[in-house]
This record gives sequence, structure tokens and C-alpha cells, in this order.
Amino acid sequence: MEPNRRQFAALVLGSAASVSLVSASNAQSDSLPSWSDGPAKQAILKFVQATTDSASPDFVPPADRVATFDQDGTLWVEQPIYTQLVFAFSRVPQVVKERPELANEPAFKAILSRDHAAIASLSLEELLSVVGATLTGMDVETYRDEVAAWIRDARDPRWKRPFTELVYQPQIELLKYLRSAGYKTYIVTGGGQDFVRAYAEPVYGIPVEQVVGTMFDLGFRPGPDGKPVLVREAKLLLNDDEAGKPEGIHLVIGRRPHLAFGNSAGDREMLEYTKAGAGARLAMIVLHDDGAREYAYGPAQGLPDSKIGTFPQALYDQAMKDGWIVVSMKNDWRRIFAFE
Amino acid sequence: MEPNRRQFAALVLGSAASVSLVSASNAQSDSLPSWSDGPAKQAILKFVQATTDSASPDFVPPADRVATFDQDGTLWVEQPIYTQLVFAFSRVPQVVKERPELANEPAFKAILSRDHAAIASLSLEELLSVVGATLTGMDVETYRDEVAAWIRDARDPRWKRPFTELVYQPQIELLKYLRSAGYKTYIVTGGGQDFVRAYAEPVYGIPVEQVVGTMFDLGFRPGPDGKPVLVREAKLLLNDDEAGKPEGIHLVIGRRPHLAFGNSAGDREMLEYTKAGAGARLAMIVLHDDGAREYAYGPAQGLPDSKIGTFPQALYDQAMKDGWIVVSMKNDWRRIFAFE
Repeated sequence: MEPNRRQFAALVLGSAASVSLVSASNAQSDSLPSWSDGPAKQAILKFVQATTDSASPDFVPPADRVATFDQDGTLWVEQPIYTQLVFAFSRVPQVVKERPELANEPAFKAILSRDHAAIASLSLEELLSVVGATLTGMDVETYRDEVAAWIRDARDPRWKRPFTELVYQPQIELLKYLRSAGYKTYIVTGGGQDFVRAYAEPVYGIPVEQVVGTMFDLGFRPGPDGKPVLVREAKLLLNDDEAGKPEGIHLVIGRRPHLAFGNSAGDREMLEYTKAGAGARLAMIVLHDDGAREYAYGPAQGLPDSKIGTFPQALYDQAMKDGWIVVSMKNDWRRIFAFE
Repeated sequence: MEPNRRQFAALVLGSAASVSLVSASNAQSDSLPSWSDGPAKQAILKFVQATTDSASPDFVPPADRVATFDQDGTLWVEQPIYTQLVFAFSRVPQVVKERPELANEPAFKAILSRDHAAIASLSLEELLSVVGATLTGMDVETYRDEVAAWIRDARDPRWKRPFTELVYQPQIELLKYLRSAGYKTYIVTGGGQDFVRAYAEPVYGIPVEQVVGTMFDLGFRPGPDGKPVLVREAKLLLNDDEAGKPEGIHLVIGRRPHLAFGNSAGDREMLEYTKAGAGARLAMIVLHDDGAREYAYGPAQGLPDSKIGTFPQALYDQAMKDGWIVVSMKNDWRRIFAFE
């Protein structure tokens, strides 16, 4: 049915039409049991129906069904600090043993002395310098094995669970639902591409070639056994954040997403790029407004400010103006974690 | 059958076992009718069987079945000059109109005056400066449309046919055969990623997300209608040649290929990287030794030297030493072009 005819039918039929729309949604909603029956869930169901029904004017051919998801704060918990930084911190003692001169740098000093106040006051640049020193220098296969081993054993201090259990159940359902509708699901993260690749398949069902992330330059050199390996250099190739997100999407995917999901200022350009495409495009953004079940931060909508995952009021206003769907963790997600 | 038992059976059964192996190959060989029944074709058939038979010790799970192909000189003709350069040259008059100061640079002067001797003596760096000036500055979608329109109408001077008909029929068959065996086929080209993406799907059956190529930095800016676009900057991000090939493979695919196919010194690192992996790995390299049906150049094996697609004798010796399969166009390919 054309949009005009659908509106006309809704006008004429009134509540009867609404009831039938709701029923149709309920029939599909089994795929998204952790989503409340609110406007966010409705927007997802409508979007998927419009883009996969071959009779719809917004039909999208399967090859173009691309959905991109930020990771930190969108698919899993990013507070009190990014999981990748916890991993980097865990490597600091070993790295300082090899390079003692680092012990005098403020970031390393704070981490070595477990000075929480000093760690909290580090700038993002200082934190990234720790990443550069601790997560480079080894070959990509060794690195992935080390990440996989660490993430299997490490525990989040609040929930005392592996970080990979701190993924949002509604998003796991959404990823599966999109894939069942022929969408290819991608992660597009400001985190390291190879860090996320180490666990993306078992945790999210997303294979390594569908992980776009921050990339370091790679050296091609003989490994210990003389066979060539790719070594992670301490030189940034692509910072997959802000304008780097649409750039990374183009380089790795080569198609403009039809659905993009983020949660912070770093996702703005990805959402803008997505919405600027022709046809049906859905931009969604998580608002962390549930301090009881997860964390509450913004500072949009009067929430406390945060250095990690900042969601400014201007971004909220842009979402309202441009038709992005703001997803309230408090209201739109019935359940946040699978272990609840 | 385990390798030891297979060897034992071959020893005991002698020629009878050989005959049965040949019959098995012949049964499959319908997929590769343009390949002569020589060692190259046998190597392909054996490799595919060994990596796709779940009882084989060299079995490769479907997700890891990655095959990478260089383009210029491996999938289509690269002489007398790369097709992308023909495209760049075609844009020179327009670009010089907009930036008259370029008319005095040797490369632009040679192209504008159609001075074939001067063009032939340009260095690769000078040629790349023409690419930088002519193939950047526009948004990625406009660029792809322009490439697609040009390549539809342009003709190769020798065969008077579209460049997209100058693809090697044996390779088209091989790409299809590999895909039918569960391999994901990728192009890994020193050419521009978006240039090749403009025609890779209809010509090779390879979708845009499976094209790895030389990448330029992208700017995220408002387009003419105010909506954001990705603009090709004149700044190289990744030169997808030599060591850049394994790097590009890791960034876009994240898996080490099990089969790689090249034809020149620029493919050496990709082939080394492929062969250095565990299990069955097949490295193949085309030798252009058929001056009658295509072009003859090396300078390996006494063939004439060439600035485009150089295949030095040292690379040939490395292929022999490391078990890469050298594919002779003259002997291994029954037919080169579909239009023959």
C-alpha cells in the first residue's frame, strides 16, 4: 500500500486500523522480546518491513542491506572506561619493564600506582598514548590470541562477569533479527579493529571481515621462524571515529548503510551519512538514562556529563530534528543483560 | 584417506591409481574448459579438493575460504598501459582547463600533445601524479558513476573492444569454480579501489565489499545539496601494492588467503603471505609469454622487459623454490578471451 493510501485508510478506519497494525507488529515482535512495545521497536519493525517487502516503494535489494553498529555504549557497556583501555592497562607493567623510561610519563605513573583519581583525570590523548605503547609491536595473529585469552579471563568490577557478558540483550536480538531479514550486520567502532575481531564472532555473530575499527599501520616483516608476518606499528592509519566512521565504512564496505546505530558524539557523522542516502534509512541512538540497571550519562536531557561516550544536548536536538530514533535504555529496553 | 595411506595406495596400485586420479580430475574439469590439462590446472583441482573435502587433513572451514586475485595482468590485460591510466589521461584536458598551471608539467604536456614517446618515458611517479590530479576532488558516488560511464564507452586500441571484454576467460572460470566450492573471491589490486568497484560485480561477479585496492583519504563534507558526501582527497591512504597488499588484505578481510593469484613483482608479498600460512595454501602467478594472442613480457625467462607488470627472473626463481605455480599463458590457457 502506498503511504498516502495507508494514511487514508488509517483515517477512515480509525482505531480499527491501529489495532491491525499493532497485531502485525506483535506477530513479528517475538524476534525482539527485550524491546518494549514503544516507538523505537515500532520504527525498527516498520523499517525492516518497508525495506524487505518487494512490493514496497522502499524495497532494498539484499546486496545493499547494510546495518552498522557502533560497539562501545551501543552493543556493550563502556563505563567506567572502555574495555580496550582495561586491556591496555593490564599490559603496562610488562611494557614498562621493557621500556623503563615510560614510568615517568603521567599516564603510566597513574596506572602503575593504581591512582584512580589520577587515572580519571587523564585526557583521551594520554589514554591513547598508552594504547599506542601497549597494543603495538606484535604481529596481528599473536595480538588476536592475546586479546582472546585476556577477555576470556578478565572480569568487570561491578558485575564480576566477563566483559563479553555485558552486551545488551536487545541489541543481540536486533542483530539476529536484521540478519534473518537479509541484512549484513557490521560493527563500526572507534575501538581497535583487531581488538574487536578477537571476539566479535562468538559474541555478536559478526565475522572478522565485518568489523570496521581504528586501524594501525602494518609492517610486513619476517617473524621469529623466518616466515613473514604483519606487525602492528605504533602509527595510526585510520581513526575510526567521527568523520573516520563514514570513511571506514566506505573503505571496508563500499556501501552506504541503510541502518546505523550509535550512542555518542563519535557516531554523529555515521548517522548523518546514513540518513543522507536515498530511500528508507534508519538512524538510531542509545541514550544511557538508566543509572539503576546500567549507567546514566549524557549530558543530554540533564544527565550527568561523561568523558566516555559523551551525548551532548546538541546531538539530542539534532536527533529530534533529523528523525533519528533516540532509544531510552530505561523505557525502550525491558531487559538489558541476558544474565538479568 | 590419510596422505600416508594415499601414497601407499599409489605405490601399490601404480598406474591404475594415477588413472583414477586423472579421471576424478576430468570429471571436475568441465568447470575450467579454457585451462589446458597441465600441471597448473591439476594443482587447482587438487587444492580445491583437499580444502573442501571434510575428510581431508587440509580441510578449510567455509568461513576461511578466501581467494585473492590481483587485477591488472592477472584478471585482465594491463598492456600497453593500465586501463585506469587511460581513464586518467582522458580527464587531463578538462583538469588542465580548471588548473592551467598543470599544462607545463612534463606528464601533462606529454599527454596533452599525444606525444607517445614522451608518454612511454614517464616514470610511474609522474603517472601517479596524473592520477592524483585527475581522479580526486569529487565525491565517491559521482566518481563511480563517471568510471562506469567511461568504461562502458571506451575501447582498447588493439582489439577495438571495451576493456571489460579483455578479461581472461580462464580466470573468469576459475573465479566461478572457486565460488562454487565455497570460496569467497576478492580482488586485491594496486589500482584504485573505487575504480575497480565501478565494474567488478558485472565483470567478475565480485561485489564492492570484496574489492581491496589503493585507497585515497576521504573528506566528509556537505555536497551540493547540503547533504554530506565523502570526497576523494589527493592524499594516498594505502598504496595497495607490494607490502601494501597483505596490509590491505588484513584491513578489509582480516583472514589470510588460502589461494592468491598474481602476475608481477607487486604481488610478491601477497603470495609470500599466503604461502606462509598453515595448511594447504596455493600461490599462482601468470607468466605473460604469449605475444601472439596477448603480450609477451617479463623479463623472466628471457621475455622482453616491461615497466608495466614487471616479472623479474628473481621472482620466477622464488616461485620455483617456494612451490608457487607459474601459469604460462601460452601453454596453460587454451583460450584467453571469451570473444576468441
